[in-house]
This record gives sequence, structure tokens and C-alpha cells, in this order.
Amino acid sequence: MNQKIGIGLLGLGTVGAGVANIVNSPEGRNPLVSNIRIARIAVRDLNRVRSIKVDPSIITNDPFEVVKDPNVEVVVEAIGGIEPAKSLIMLAINHGKSVVTANKAVVARYGKEISDAANAAGVYVLIEAAVGGGIPIIEPLKQSLGGNKIKKVTGIINGTTNYILTEMAKGEAKYEDVLNEAKKLGYAEADPSADVNGDDAADKIAILSGLAFGGGIDREAIPTKGINNLESKDINYSRQLGYEVKLLAVAEYIEKKAQENNLHSLALRVEPTLLPKDHPLSAVNGVNNAILIEGDPIGEVMFYGPGAGAGPTASAVVADILNIVGIKLMQKEEGACLDPLLSSISWRNCILANTRDISQKNYIRLITADNPGVIGKIGNILGKNQVSIESIVQFDSNNAKAEIIVITHKVSKGKINDSLAEIENMKEVLNVASHLGCL
Amino acid sequence: MNQKIGIGLLGLGTVGAGVANIVNSPEGRNPLVSNIRIARIAVRDLNRVRSIKVDPSIITNDPFEVVKDPNVEVVVEAIGGIEPAKSLIMLAINHGKSVVTANKAVVARYGKEISDAANAAGVYVLIEAAVGGGIPIIEPLKQSLGGNKIKKVTGIINGTTNYILTEMAKGEAKYEDVLNEAKKLGYAEADPSADVNGDDAADKIAILSGLAFGGGIDREAIPTKGINNLESKDINYSRQLGYEVKLLAVAEYIEKKAQENNLHSLALRVEPTLLPKDHPLSAVNGVNNAILIEGDPIGEVMFYGPGAGAGPTASAVVADILNIVGIKLMQKEEGACLDPLLSSISWRNCILANTRDISQKNYIRLITADNPGVIGKIGNILGKNQVSIESIVQFDSNNAKAEIIVITHKVSKGKINDSLAEIENMKEVLNVASHLGCL
Repeated sequence: MNQKIGIGLLGLGTVGAGVANIVNSPEGRNPLVSNIRIARIAVRDLNRVRSIKVDPSIITNDPFEVVKDPNVEVVVEAIGGIEPAKSLIMLAINHGKSVVTANKAVVARYGKEISDAANAAGVYVLIEAAVGGGIPIIEPLKQSLGGNKIKKVTGIINGTTNYILTEMAKGEAKYEDVLNEAKKLGYAEADPSADVNGDDAADKIAILSGLAFGGGIDREAIPTKGINNLESKDINYSRQLGYEVKLLAVAEYIEKKAQENNLHSLALRVEPTLLPKDHPLSAVNGVNNAILIEGDPIGEVMFYGPGAGAGPTASAVVADILNIVGIKLMQKEEGACLDPLLSSISWRNCILANTRDISQKNYIRLITADNPGVIGKIGNILGKNQVSIESIVQFDSNNAKAEIIVITHKVSKGKINDSLAEIENMKEVLNVASHLGCL
Repeated sequence: MNQKIGIGLLGLGTVGAGVANIVNSPEGRNPLVSNIRIARIAVRDLNRVRSIKVDPSIITNDPFEVVKDPNVEVVVEAIGGIEPAKSLIMLAINHGKSVVTANKAVVARYGKEISDAANAAGVYVLIEAAVGGGIPIIEPLKQSLGGNKIKKVTGIINGTTNYILTEMAKGEAKYEDVLNEAKKLGYAEADPSADVNGDDAADKIAILSGLAFGGGIDREAIPTKGINNLESKDINYSRQLGYEVKLLAVAEYIEKKAQENNLHSLALRVEPTLLPKDHPLSAVNGVNNAILIEGDPIGEVMFYGPGAGAGPTASAVVADILNIVGIKLMQKEEGACLDPLLSSISWRNCILANTRDISQKNYIRLITADNPGVIGKIGNILGKNQVSIESIVQFDSNNAKAEIIVITHKVSKGKINDSLAEIENMKEVLNVASHLGCL
């Protein structure tokens, strides 16, 4: 399988450059990555200095040229915004080319038009990066959870607002102050309105709802409330009552309206919502995203990870490219033809590392004589074996015996085992009662 | 696409019956489910009374007959154990049939032999249900995360031990007592040794490691320590220090050993491990499973859900069947041929529910006169509108004003909005300062 599939990159910003970085360093990734070739790239400014190395002969400032280039078999749209992104996607489809896009605004508004055109042309439009950054969520809804009747999708799917809410929950900080801090840190855009007023989350829940429930709805009609009017006071009261406040996007299957044309009724909303502290979504903090899916018969399953950023988004875009590359290679091959992404392949030679080389923190409980010099001696042995200590606590002492808990910094099993052998031989140590790993 | 693909079920226990339940009730699931036909079923006891209805003419007590049946295109192995499961899987492959299995013991030990045979025969052996029950984890490692260099896989992948540890963490309960309780509740098997000594988790991390790092390792050499010698005392001390104790299975990429035949060195281990309370895996309780994956460039992504049980396992088995069915239909169709699982399809007509019909709990903050009759009046209005109250708390009062927080039980937005309109009109209520949803 050394056939290369040519992709055309529209945009070489953070997402486009992230994709190019993956394609240019295939080692250690799925071997299919080496079947991807960047055939053409469209940029806005030909003269801009780039952090990544690309062959200047494949760069153009006309994205339509990339779409039409016969060397381009798959178009990766990484421009964003409605136009010209939508026209470029439609042009690619009309040229019989599959498309990979992270463009939630286009997909949420023109999903049906795009997918009708793609199905008619026999091409794919894949959108894993449009929701949840790098978190695999589109694919699970389309494939891995396909046996389920999905009942409800509940998501924290906007990183900017989740960062703001997390910071507000830490103290009395006001919304405006935290927003300004988020802008400085790059977690909020210069114009954050689509994030903070809930529109971005509404785009994304419209997309998830379409996949979960099998049919699109009117994007503009989704009841949407942002965090821009939320007071710190309510976050603090909520916490005192045992709740966290998150901007949730929810899509829920209500009922089938048999009388009206076989319509299926869905409740969607985006709004700041309290979650009990033991709810799986309540611990999702900072710019992270998470999506909880309830289905029959699976029950509840949650997907959690970085909701934005160059690396995670590029990871999702490349996943989509790999799906298309896998199928293209399968269809091009003669004889026994397997989708290389689904078949079982072993692509490198692995061995187990020596157990002594496994590194982690350690928890150690020692039973010792109740003697003021003991902790010092233990510390000396650990130090001699290059084991750095996070804490030593004497927990309990009676009958002239003491229990000492040591938590170490990260260290190899070899060094910790050597240390424990020495510690066990100390006359003040009765025994090493426990030794557990620690993350 | 009304071609049906015939599957043969080996076993009609909890998993097999779960699969049959999904196939027999396709409505509301991915439309491809209706392309699955149960062609043949093997059971141990032909006379046993079953909870599900199956055509008696397709049942046999000879599983080899099912594998060889020409109507069976895909074999679903749901027998468990090493033999005859392994022989049946190999026979299916030799008959050119794809296999779906949840059998982690067979896959962890004979994965290479099986996948070599499958690749040679041009068939798939899919194993989503072998790790993490219903949680999509095999597919993400094979496809969705394919653009990443995976660095580390950290999993809570044995539900029985996680249940026991969760119970032990609640108090001073001893390991043996909790284990006996778990057996009564069906969370532990009569012979729980493979679970509690870590062998089941070692099987599973061997499988995940092979997918994450591209090559198998020697299953029997994985350093494995169970929870059977763990003392409650260490769990309690750990909690006092800010840690939870979990049975972790870890696989970590260490280095490429250039000098030795291009070998890649992996550190694997299964052992009880402390996790800081803010670690994403520390909140995974009861029989749930979760797998945290660290990769470049994605960062950290976590998959969480039910690690066992008929429904979740059947969900994963059907996901695998759908992948195979999708490809079979794609290959059978003429002309423009799209993998129906990857292409965008809208398969039912959806509309947004009336916003008034969306139901959830509510958090309401009212500014009121500091008057002892106010809470009663508010309660009356809510009661009249059929809004049930979870709690009413008066938080703060000064300058003759009070702040009252109401948390309601689940109720429609229509009823809560009607109530708030009335409450706003009370002469004692200065304003409704906040109204948030609550899960």
C-alpha cells in the first residue's frame, strides 16, 4: 500500500499547519498517514513567513484552483466562516472530491444541502473536527453507537465559555474581568460574541442532534442563552448547594408525532445549567469539552478531551482523511480487499520494557519503631537511591510503633525497589506494609 | 439498501440475547440495523426457556454448523472462554467469514495468529466489545486517533474491581466483605479470580497496547498485581492525602531501541494505583470503566461508560457488525459506491419540540422583602402550577431584603415560566434575579 492520495489544503492557519505537521512526520502514527500526500495548498498571503516547511511550488492564493487541481483527491477546508468556505465545499463535491471540514457554522446551516449533494456525487463530507475539537464524537454517533436508540446528548462543547465559568467558580471574579483575561491567554477571540452568547454551542448541538436522531432541525430556532448575563453570585450560591454551573447544550428525543407526517420531536437548548457535583460533566473544567450520550441499550457513555486548539483539531481532521484514504485504497486494490482502517494490522515490533524501567510516583506505608530518627534515615536511603520525596507523614503511633506514609515523586521501579530492600533492612522498620503505584 | 446480511450468533446468553434484541427492534436505531438478519443461532441447551423470541428453525446446539452455514456471512462469537471459541473463530476465517467477538482472553493470547489468518483470508475480526464494554475504544484507537503518536494508555478496565474499590473507599469495609456483596449483586462472578488478581485487566491492556502502539507483546509477561491483597487502611490513608486508589492498567511507549532490530519498547503494568483527586480517572466509580489516552498532537482524551453488562456489550458488538455490513453493502452496490456508515444520511423527519415542553430542574434566585410569609406564598404559586420543589433556601438578608434560592424538581419550561410570571407579580418580590436550568 504505497499509493499516495493527494489532499488539497484550503488554509494554512493553525488547523492547516497542524494537519501538514502530522502528514510530514508519519513515523509512529497509523501507517496510513504515509499514504497521504499534500498536493496543493491555498493561503491568503503568499508572502507570509510560515512556521512549517512546505514546497513553495504547491502554494497558491486561489483556493478554487486547489479544489479544481486534478492532483487533489480530497479537499480539506480549513478556512472557516460561511463564504467562500461553503462555495468551495460545494465546488469540491461537484468535482467528485470528498471533503473534510471543521466548519461548524457551514455544516449547522447548510448540512442538508451539502450532504444531499455529496450523496448524489458519491463523495464524503466528514466533519469530526466540527464538534469537540479532537474528541472523537462524530464517528461514535455515526458508527460505534449505531445499534442504539439515542435518547439524549448533553455537551459542554464550547471551550471559551467553560474556561470563563471555571475561573468564575474559583472566586468572586466578574464575568467581564475573566473574559478579558481569557482574551489575553488566547482562550477567547477578540470578538467572543458567538462563544459567549451560545451561538457556537448551538451550531454544534445542531450537528450532534442531526447525527444522534437521524434528521436535521431548524438551526435558528434552537432556544439559546449564553453566559454573558450570568452573575458570579449565582455560581457561588450554586456551589454552596452542591452544584456547578456549565453552559450546556442539550438535545433530547421527546416523542414521535404519529399524526403529523411521522415527525420526530426533539428538545434542544443551549443555556447555563446547574449540574450536581457528582454528575460526570461537572468536573469538566477549563477549555476542555465533554459530551455525554444516553442510549438504549448502552446506558450513559462520555467522551472528554481538548475542545479546541491546533493539535486536537488537526488530529480530528486527519482521522477523517484516514477514513477516506482507507476506503480509496480498498477500492483501488484488486483481489481480497479490506478497509485497512478496520482490518487488524501489526505495523511495528514491540517488546515489553524492563519492569525496573517503569516510572511512576509511589505510595509506601511502613510500620516502624516510634523513634524520632526514623524519618531521617528513610529519607537518607531514598536520597541515596535518587528517589525524590513528595511527602512523608507519620500517621499513627501506639505501642511504640508508628505508621509512616511516603509519597515519592516519579521514579523508576528499579530505584524504588532497591530503596525498599534497604529500608526493610533498617532495624527500626518492622515491615513495608504497602507499596502502591501513584499517578 | 434493503439487502440483508446474514449473521450467525454463537451463544444466546446475555450478550447474544442483547444483540438479538437490537436486531429485532431496528426502529430508532441506525437504519443499517435493518440490514442485519439473524440467520442462525447456536445454543448449548436447545430446551432452555428464553426471554427473547427466536425462530426455532434457526437454532442448533452445534456451533460449527452455524459457522459453516452458507446463509451466515458474519459470525458473532459470544461464547467466551478459550475453547471452542478460538477454533470457531479460526474456522469462520477459513470459511471467508468476518467475525465479531467480545472474547478478550482469546484475542489477548492469539491476536496475531487470528489477525494474520483474517488478513490472508480478506475478512475482518472486530473486537469493540472486548475492552470497556459499550465504550467505543477499539475504533478510536484504530481510526479516530490514527493521526496521533500515542504515548500512553491508562485505563480502569475492570468493573468488578472498580466496584469493590469504590465500596471500600466509602468506609472501613474489608475486601472480603465487599467481594461477597458484589457477588450477591451480580457485579462479581462466582469465581472472581481473573478479575481480582488483575488477569482480566491484563488481557485488556494487552489488546489496547497492540492497537495503540502497532504491535503485540507477550501477554503473559505483563507485570500484574490485583486488589486481592489490598487493605482498606491504605485506601483510607490515600484519601486523607488527597488520592483515590484504582486498579489501573497502563501501557506506555518508552523508546525505540534502534540497535535491536528496530524494536519499540513499551512499559505495561496492572496494579492498584493512587490517583490525585483532580485526575480525570479518579471520579470513575462503581462498575464503570474509563480509558485515558495521551497522544501527539491531541493531548489527553478520555472515554467513559459502562464497562460490562448485556446492553453495553451488545451495543459494541452491533457497532462492529454495522461496520462490516456497511462495507459489504458498499461493495455489493454498483455505480457510485459509498460506505453508508461514513456518508451523511438523514433518515427521519425531525422538528424542534415546543420550548414550553422542555423539562428539567430549575435554579431560581429571587430578591424579596424580608418577610416570613414570602416563602409560603412562593410555595403556593409553584404548587398551583404543578411545580414540585426540591429546596427553598433563604441565603442572605439585609436592608429588609432577602435572597431566596429555589431548586425545583424536573418540570416543563412552560409551567416554570407561568409560575415565575406570577411570582414576579407578588408585591413582596422585588425581582427574579436569576433563572437557570439544573440537571
